[in-house]
Amino acid sequence: MSRGQDIRRAMTAEQVKAYQENGYLLLPNYFSRAEIDVLAAELPIVFSEDSPRRIIETNEVSVRSVYGSHMTNEVFKCLTCHPRLVGPAMQLLGSNVYVYQFKVNAKVAFDGDVWQWHQDYIFWLKEDGLPSPRIVNVIVFLSEVNEFNAPLLIIPGSHKEGVIEVPALYEDENTQTSTWISSLTAKLRYSVSKETVTRLVRDYGMEALKGPAGSVLFFDSNLVHASANNISPFDRNMVLITFNSVENIPITRGTPRPDFLVSRDYSSIIPVADDAMLAFVTH
Amino acid sequence: MSRGQDIRRAMTAEQVKAYQENGYLLLPNYFSRAEIDVLAAELPIVFSEDSPRRIIETNEVSVRSVYGSHMTNEVFKCLTCHPRLVGPAMQLLGSNVYVYQFKVNAKVAFDGDVWQWHQDYIFWLKEDGLPSPRIVNVIVFLSEVNEFNAPLLIIPGSHKEGVIEVPALYEDENTQTSTWISSLTAKLRYSVSKETVTRLVRDYGMEALKGPAGSVLFFDSNLVHASANNISPFDRNMVLITFNSVENIPITRGTPRPDFLVSRDYSSIIPVADDAMLAFVTH
Repeated sequence: MSRGQDIRRAMTAEQVKAYQENGYLLLPNYFSRAEIDVLAAELPIVFSEDSPRRIIETNEVSVRSVYGSHMTNEVFKCLTCHPRLVGPAMQLLGSNVYVYQFKVNAKVAFDGDVWQWHQDYIFWLKEDGLPSPRIVNVIVFLSEVNEFNAPLLIIPGSHKEGVIEVPALYEDENTQTSTWISSLTAKLRYSVSKETVTRLVRDYGMEALKGPAGSVLFFDSNLVHASANNISPFDRNMVLITFNSVENIPITRGTPRPDFLVSRDYSSIIPVADDAMLAFVTH
Repeated sequence: MSRGQDIRRAMTAEQVKAYQENGYLLLPNYFSRAEIDVLAAELPIVFSEDSPRRIIETNEVSVRSVYGSHMTNEVFKCLTCHPRLVGPAMQLLGSNVYVYQFKVNAKVAFDGDVWQWHQDYIFWLKEDGLPSPRIVNVIVFLSEVNEFNAPLLIIPGSHKEGVIEVPALYEDENTQTSTWISSLTAKLRYSVSKETVTRLVRDYGMEALKGPAGSVLFFDSNLVHASANNISPFDRNMVLITFNSVENIPITRGTPRPDFLVSRDYSSIIPVADDAMLAFVTH
């Protein structure tokens, strides 16, 4: 069987339909324990890098997120080329894809802070000039996500609302740094209003996406989502990879955000072998 | 059947055993919808009272808690005398009881803030000179508590550890107000350390206590508990009543905290009739 055939049948027709209808698809145990161990072993290295790519929580101590690690770390680079992620992304977008953004969200035990209710695409539209939401988010659970460690809360079907206009949180920004940092911290630049969330939850309901380490979530960039603070003793580490269609390159006006937030490398990803992560296992 | 007999059989032997073993007992639908509607109808009145008994969240807008409403509100006074609460409290403590503390915790939709990991008794020991944990907490759910609106998280069995000594968060307080206020806001004066919570959860596990409006939770004042912030569109209103044994009166040193935090009325509660709440139904 050729690699091309593998990718074409990445998701079943039912899975694609569920993704399109609900705005997400959660696949439990999509990566093996051995593969997740390989990824998790890189976290201490990534978290300890003192870099503008690392965002600290408002407690000024804990790591909140690290961006762009696939540019510096071979294991995470391999993950962004993994056929189990790239295949469905190509299938859903109907084209070749590239990595638009990569991050690790730490949501550490006791100190992981809130992510307010938001859609992702509006940030990329307003900040980066991304022409359309022809883009797929993929989350790889590096920890078990349970009812205690602040699972992602989503409003299923809310992606059908398209871009929900919101008043920008900070009208005046003096420096470029404060502009882009306001998309990354606990106070989000474009959060969906309480009134809108209340209406959407009444119309669509609400779900908490839980699963063992190794589970993978594909979700639409217009899906409304949030997560609470993590007061449990359990870390909740996730990798988030955003794949963009190579036919949906941002049209930048003014100075673009740093390349660890909006990649300038538009070359199509060539998937690696399905067992590629296991090459990094240390014995 | 006399009222005395009612009270003696307030909890079954199995329920008492479960309470003593786990440190809590959750009774779903303990009050009827009609009774809860009576209580919930008082919330707007209680929340709108501008008083030192009302504590505001760190967002400086939302009501976090209101203390001592049973002293001013007939409906909540009736609740503190309800045989379904007073009976089990007398049974568990083996004596007559009085209301040590009363509060409504709002934990409002979107803005309800965290309660850090803590035990209750240590506050009353250190701040009020309460001789022993011969005291019972009762929580009445005025809202449905679900996985989205920050249920109480508890470590079952942790009450067996007794008082867990913790370093006081604020060493120096300049005014009496700032001293007692630090027991009531999101930054707790006596919170259990991350290391201890991690150990306790490893040893005892962890539970999220959910249930429909009308459920009632009895819990030990040494049970370690916490709750996250509420980012959902669902309020999570609860009444918390602490019954103390009349044989366990505080031994005050110095200036006592305000009487809405530590009651000076030690007279034994005389339970009202079981259907007393329904007298407040408005037609």
